[in-house]
Amino acid sequence: MKAFVYLGPTKKALAERPKPEITAPTDAIVKVTKTTICGTDLHILKGDVPSCHQGRILGHEGIGIVDEAGPAVTSFKPGDRVLISCITACGKCLYCRKLMFSHCSAGGWILGNSIDGTQAEYVRIPHADTSLYRIPKDADDEALVMLSDILPTGFECGVLNGRVQPGCSVAIVGAGPIGLAALLTAQFFAPAQIIMIDIDDNRLEMAKRFGATTTINNTDGKARETVMELTGECGVDTAIEAVGTPATFELCETILAPGGVIANIGVHGTKVALHLERLWDRNITITTRLVDTVSTPMLLNILQSRRIDPKLLITHRFKLDHILDAYETFGHAANTRALKVIVET
Amino acid sequence: MKAFVYLGPTKKALAERPKPEITAPTDAIVKVTKTTICGTDLHILKGDVPSCHQGRILGHEGIGIVDEAGPAVTSFKPGDRVLISCITACGKCLYCRKLMFSHCSAGGWILGNSIDGTQAEYVRIPHADTSLYRIPKDADDEALVMLSDILPTGFECGVLNGRVQPGCSVAIVGAGPIGLAALLTAQFFAPAQIIMIDIDDNRLEMAKRFGATTTINNTDGKARETVMELTGECGVDTAIEAVGTPATFELCETILAPGGVIANIGVHGTKVALHLERLWDRNITITTRLVDTVSTPMLLNILQSRRIDPKLLITHRFKLDHILDAYETFGHAANTRALKVIVET
Amino acid sequence: MKAFVYLGPTKKALAERPKPEITAPTDAIVKVTKTTICGTDLHILKGDVPSCHQGRILGHEGIGIVDEAGPAVTSFKPGDRVLISCITACGKCLYCRKLMFSHCSAGGWILGNSIDGTQAEYVRIPHADTSLYRIPKDADDEALVMLSDILPTGFECGVLNGRVQPGCSVAIVGAGPIGLAALLTAQFFAPAQIIMIDIDDNRLEMAKRFGATTTINNTDGKARETVMELTGECGVDTAIEAVGTPATFELCETILAPGGVIANIGVHGTKVALHLERLWDRNITITTRLVDTVSTPMLLNILQSRRIDPKLLITHRFKLDHILDAYETFGHAANTRALKVIVET
Amino acid sequence: MKAFVYLGPTKKALAERPKPEITAPTDAIVKVTKTTICGTDLHILKGDVPSCHQGRILGHEGIGIVDEAGPAVTSFKPGDRVLISCITACGKCLYCRKLMFSHCSAGGWILGNSIDGTQAEYVRIPHADTSLYRIPKDADDEALVMLSDILPTGFECGVLNGRVQPGCSVAIVGAGPIGLAALLTAQFFAPAQIIMIDIDDNRLEMAKRFGATTTINNTDGKARETVMELTGECGVDTAIEAVGTPATFELCETILAPGGVIANIGVHGTKVALHLERLWDRNITITTRLVDTVSTPMLLNILQSRRIDPKLLITHRFKLDHILDAYETFGHAANTRALKVIVET
Repeated sequence: MKAFVYLGPTKKALAERPKPEITAPTDAIVKVTKTTICGTDLHILKGDVPSCHQGRILGHEGIGIVDEAGPAVTSFKPGDRVLISCITACGKCLYCRKLMFSHCSAGGWILGNSIDGTQAEYVRIPHADTSLYRIPKDADDEALVMLSDILPTGFECGVLNGRVQPGCSVAIVGAGPIGLAALLTAQFFAPAQIIMIDIDDNRLEMAKRFGATTTINNTDGKARETVMELTGECGVDTAIEAVGTPATFELCETILAPGGVIANIGVHGTKVALHLERLWDRNITITTRLVDTVSTPMLLNILQSRRIDPKLLITHRFKLDHILDAYETFGHAANTRALKVIVET
Repeated sequence: MKAFVYLGPTKKALAERPKPEITAPTDAIVKVTKTTICGTDLHILKGDVPSCHQGRILGHEGIGIVDEAGPAVTSFKPGDRVLISCITACGKCLYCRKLMFSHCSAGGWILGNSIDGTQAEYVRIPHADTSLYRIPKDADDEALVMLSDILPTGFECGVLNGRVQPGCSVAIVGAGPIGLAALLTAQFFAPAQIIMIDIDDNRLEMAKRFGATTTINNTDGKARETVMELTGECGVDTAIEAVGTPATFELCETILAPGGVIANIGVHGTKVALHLERLWDRNITITTRLVDTVSTPMLLNILQSRRIDPKLLITHRFKLDHILDAYETFGHAANTRALKVIVET
Repeated sequence: MKAFVYLGPTKKALAERPKPEITAPTDAIVKVTKTTICGTDLHILKGDVPSCHQGRILGHEGIGIVDEAGPAVTSFKPGDRVLISCITACGKCLYCRKLMFSHCSAGGWILGNSIDGTQAEYVRIPHADTSLYRIPKDADDEALVMLSDILPTGFECGVLNGRVQPGCSVAIVGAGPIGLAALLTAQFFAPAQIIMIDIDDNRLEMAKRFGATTTINNTDGKARETVMELTGECGVDTAIEAVGTPATFELCETILAPGGVIANIGVHGTKVALHLERLWDRNITITTRLVDTVSTPMLLNILQSRRIDPKLLITHRFKLDHILDAYETFGHAANTRALKVIVET
Repeated sequence: MKAFVYLGPTKKALAERPKPEITAPTDAIVKVTKTTICGTDLHILKGDVPSCHQGRILGHEGIGIVDEAGPAVTSFKPGDRVLISCITACGKCLYCRKLMFSHCSAGGWILGNSIDGTQAEYVRIPHADTSLYRIPKDADDEALVMLSDILPTGFECGVLNGRVQPGCSVAIVGAGPIGLAALLTAQFFAPAQIIMIDIDDNRLEMAKRFGATTTINNTDGKARETVMELTGECGVDTAIEAVGTPATFELCETILAPGGVIANIGVHGTKVALHLERLWDRNITITTRLVDTVSTPMLLNILQSRRIDPKLLITHRFKLDHILDAYETFGHAANTRALKVIVET
């Protein structure tokens, strides 16, 4: 089968690989119909993710059709249309029993990382019963692909952890795909203000269309002043960090109201300065989270109720044969204005 | 009247001062019967608290008897025995209406800071109805003094923010008075493990008597290894920082289980390094808090039920005339083994 | 001044009364500009509310302008535009300190009940600092009147108590004004299904326009079957009782999914049958609540953000001189299709 | 093998039965070492549980040793000592994914009900990975048997659902085994008052020894008056119903403070009267629950920390050969003063 393979730092290829086989009774083989590319895949290609070795098929998102189900799989059978979660959960370990699937002792984020992933014609899904989701009949395929990772990540790590509530004020730092996913899902809780901060006017314009009440271009470094002005000099109730740099995290520290929350989504490669000399008495909360995808059933419900349109995030479409172009487009988002790209197999 | 006065960095005196008077209809004048000294008072004396100007009467803890009540005070009358909260709350502002009294826009921590405090024969208490608490008839006076600040601080900032739960594991870094207050009140929630970490064997011995299940002397810098061993290499569910230095905070970062909480109590004078490169995907929470004293009514109930003996924290007693000795004793705790000292007027 | 007065069961009049005066330093006198009529006012007129004696000026909703403020009122001054909460809160008692203003030991629902109310040119508001709310400059006056009682009641008693969450299913039994207020505010949490049940097609049609995803006319007593069908034979996550009869409450008992919540808003005059023989093992929750109006600041924020249009609830407008007509119209809602009527002074 | 078998209403026997066999790859066969009898078993013997057919081996509690594990069982192997949960959980269905194992669509309470149970030499446990728990090395076998059902039931249905908190007041109606289990586990949260109500002085005496702060013999029907007096005429924060009759449930309705919770544990055979005409505005919560045993890992931790001694509940011990005597003793608890009886195989 065709598969997109990481060949070591900066090297990659669309290659021919053997079709995966069931190796444990709880496995399923899924024929991938649509997948996409994540910012994390770009990190892997740079060589930044040591758990991902060369030769690995990338990809942890997608939908497909069950091709084969192991003998202990009880919820799915060949022919079932399924959503693939980016997080593999055994459903048995202490972490799974606390609904912290991200830290499943037999799973977590392994797809396209420590085992082969979804950017291929077929993928093996371990613990299929608890890592796949049945697709509603009339659901839109492309919209569903957004439920593998980006929407639950924005929602769980940003919105839920950020305790977004009706009437509250939210700032989202970073208007890339993940920041926009947080923006879309924050609106489930009717905040009064959603302030989007970035340095790219195109993305900020998109944020406006997605429901931001205000946008701030922080090229001049004056975002803090503007946020304080917009919030009556109080600061925001929730600051969502969706970039992953010290500067953006530290901006969040300065725009938070007493009692507020910084919900980190960004993938950080270095430490940040936490200014406890200013924050120790501010009654704040800081959270980090690898998505657990516990909200997937709920997001499927909302998708069906049409209260959200995740397809807004999709800007480009490619065939698997042209996945190198897809990477090119996604990797140069500033020029291409790409958010999420759909790769069809 | 006699009062302990801050006279600028490193200068202090027991001085004669005019008895305070009611200046707002919601004020009460309280004749102080017992007060105590807080670590923060030592910070002030070093000149570390800019909001506290020279000439200030220190002290934000104590019990007493209402001497005079302003015309708008409805809950108290002269002769009532009262507990003084370290936090003044107007009960009206947006923060008070969220029970975040620490950030009351007309109060917060002002006693012995921006207005005169309790280390004197009399003290003026603004917003008396919402800043004083009626004392149960048979309650012990000295135990009550521990409810002005240290117990609610340990409980709210450490235990509640740290989400201590039955069966969980807790590490408390710092076995000083505030760490021990967290230790005492953590036991309200029946954690399975309470690991106390310090570098002073006397304090750790005390911690054992107060209910720590294990103590670790971190003089050799190996606390992390020991905690991991004690928790099956998982780390603790809750790490309570009760010192206020980068080293102790960063120790907390390294001993936390996925999904755990660092509850900061320490007063920090400088930034700390937050290792998001290791923590971004660990589903952790970090909290800071200036005590709100919202738990005071509850702590009064528990005190009455004899489920806690806060007098354990009291090691020395002085008359107000000898408050300079009291400061000397409290300020050299390593030698005197002082925890809390009672100052009787 | 002119005032609408309850004169004993079924008797009422627009009468001349002396302008109220400040009787406690925490009082304010408010010149009422707009008020409205509540279903509870009709209960009083029938003689069903024993705490309300004859001679009482009715009304517990409205907006106005501060005419005079007692000497201990610090948040408001003459000329301030204010929203009057239906709940009077002293801000000091044990219940207020738990944010359960409804049970304030010096307040609660007293306006137009045990003290004179808002259906008059002026009203005395006790504990003004904690019972009035400043009005945003550009807010719509009529919309604001809906924030005195009906919106916080629908939201707190129905939506918050009912734990409405993104993606969940909600049934609201009763499409009168309060059921519609629950419907409007339930949408703050993006439920996937909101099923409205009533026996009046006009009201159900209105419910559709307000955002119900399905409506059921239960004249044939088959609502249960339809709800089960709509929810895959599971039942709803949240059932909001907005009528106040045994039949409607017991309907809620039969349409609830395991783990679901019945949030009662209805004012009940008689006991209901709780079928614990069917429900003891269903992991359900039942809540009751008199509104606390703790959500008022939040609702003011949302109103400003234009995420809700409470004016949808307003169907008729009258001058105070014609308040008897207003009562007539409101009291015959089945014919007049009245929801809320605005009475302008 | 020997097994205790239900033979239709009032009929029962210790009979010879074939050893169970693995029927699904997720099954395990457990050699039972210790089991016990539950009040529900008595209900079955009376013919009150229609889902339990004649011929059924009873029992849903116990500990044992894994004898055989199906090919898809990954957490246990023959020889492992295990605790058997009274609730079977597949770990995959929508209810399991919400941690509501009690309503598992492939499990729930089935042991000794719709499939053969633990009062036998061997038992087949479906979904073994998520329905068995590894036993700590040095744990006491008899204490562990209390963790199959009675402790998690008292804790989850009574204490957690009742929101018992430090400093609060709790009344437990019914001092039988389950009421005493609630009493033991309520103390994890340091309530200030635990009032135990029953009509049997022996049980109340036991309750005193287990930690009740007050006991009330309600033979004279005056429990309500006493509770009100003990709570300053407020009522209790939490009322735990541990009997299952209309009279005891309705007593709970009358002793609840505004804002309080009634947590029902009792198995009810008939409806009760819910006095909404008195309760609609009291801001109360009522909960029901079939135990989920989600707290089992936590209870195992607490057991290891020795903060609880569940063996207090054990009054009698029998060999499996004498299980009919065990039933006799347990069934006449008023005379035998039996709480829990251990049956050893």
